[in-house]
Amino acid sequence: MKVRVHTFGMSLDGFSAGTNQDLQHPLGVRGEEMMQWFFPTRMFRKTVLHLEGGETGVDNAMAERGFENLGAWILGRNMFGPVRGPWPDESWKGWWGEEPPYHVPVFVLTHHARKPLEMKGGTVFHFVTDGIESALAQAKAAAKGRDVRIGGGVSTVRQYLEARLIDEMHLAVSPVMLGTGEALFRDLDVSALGYASDESVAGERATHFFVRRR
Amino acid sequence: MKVRVHTFGMSLDGFSAGTNQDLQHPLGVRGEEMMQWFFPTRMFRKTVLHLEGGETGVDNAMAERGFENLGAWILGRNMFGPVRGPWPDESWKGWWGEEPPYHVPVFVLTHHARKPLEMKGGTVFHFVTDGIESALAQAKAAAKGRDVRIGGGVSTVRQYLEARLIDEMHLAVSPVMLGTGEALFRDLDVSALGYASDESVAGERATHFFVRRR
Repeated sequence: MKVRVHTFGMSLDGFSAGTNQDLQHPLGVRGEEMMQWFFPTRMFRKTVLHLEGGETGVDNAMAERGFENLGAWILGRNMFGPVRGPWPDESWKGWWGEEPPYHVPVFVLTHHARKPLEMKGGTVFHFVTDGIESALAQAKAAAKGRDVRIGGGVSTVRQYLEARLIDEMHLAVSPVMLGTGEALFRDLDVSALGYASDESVAGERATHFFVRRR
Repeated sequence: MKVRVHTFGMSLDGFSAGTNQDLQHPLGVRGEEMMQWFFPTRMFRKTVLHLEGGETGVDNAMAERGFENLGAWILGRNMFGPVRGPWPDESWKGWWGEEPPYHVPVFVLTHHARKPLEMKGGTVFHFVTDGIESALAQAKAAAKGRDVRIGGGVSTVRQYLEARLIDEMHLAVSPVMLGTGEALFRDLDVSALGYASDESVAGERATHFFVRRR
């Protein structure tokens, strides 16, 4: 049972999200430029847009790997939505419409309690208010032997890296200069934390790097 | 006539040199890990080691590009050597032995004056004490219409990027996590400075990214 990060974009200058996330900019301003390799894949079209077709090359194969053998997900609250502070009501149900791409329990890190939210297709959002270790314990229990994927965003991945709780990570580096945003590795000595990269694979639009904990 | 950076290594976590450069660690501790793609190339073996043989694939082709049409180089002082402060004498003549790989005038940025140093094979080191713009003006004059290459290190490249004086840059990203070192883009909003990346090429051991000024 592994804890994995997948399909995580990074610009050449080290950012994995833009600034000023809002309803129009789920990945922050210009953040979508790091994911241009993902959007044309069959995987993205099928799981997120519920559409047929799409590219089936290396980038798609890398995206497909990220959905294999998953039993639960963990998301930071900002990856769940643009709402900040206490939930004003229960109307926000994620970026993904009626049928989110998860199809398993999803644990959302937040400081503000909320009732579980059941969506079409097997996705149930659970809101966890007692920290990343609790969320991981709950996710592992729910995953029933399958892997747990840390979906993001940047702050969530950094917290799990710092706690040495991630086993492997797939980063897709795009030829994009973002200039500002959320830097994935800034002030995080990933080497001292035991992480090493030993593999890269060239895709059609991005280069896929694999990072593993020693 | 262009001002170019080439064959510049970067780790996946954004470092282009390790810490604690000294005689045994010209690229800082673990810095050589980012250049493992370069050492086996025919270009490196021929120009730096004066040896026959070597690999002739994509990585080598990228390294060869970096030596085409050059009329002058600019190096930061730490790229010239490990000596700090005033020159104790004239015994340090660079990392490269009697015949350095440049074969054209090389302008070394330093705060400490020193007489020009002529080496075998056409390399002359000139020591420039009045700043990066002066060094570039001198290098352009010496290059006689050919391009000027900014050799490094990190601080020198960052200064020229910040001054928007670099036209194009070739970065070779390796699947290596350095953890600490000199970060190439930290606190440098290269996008606002007008730089964009629009191309990447997969080599045998590194991915080659090209960055150009708009």
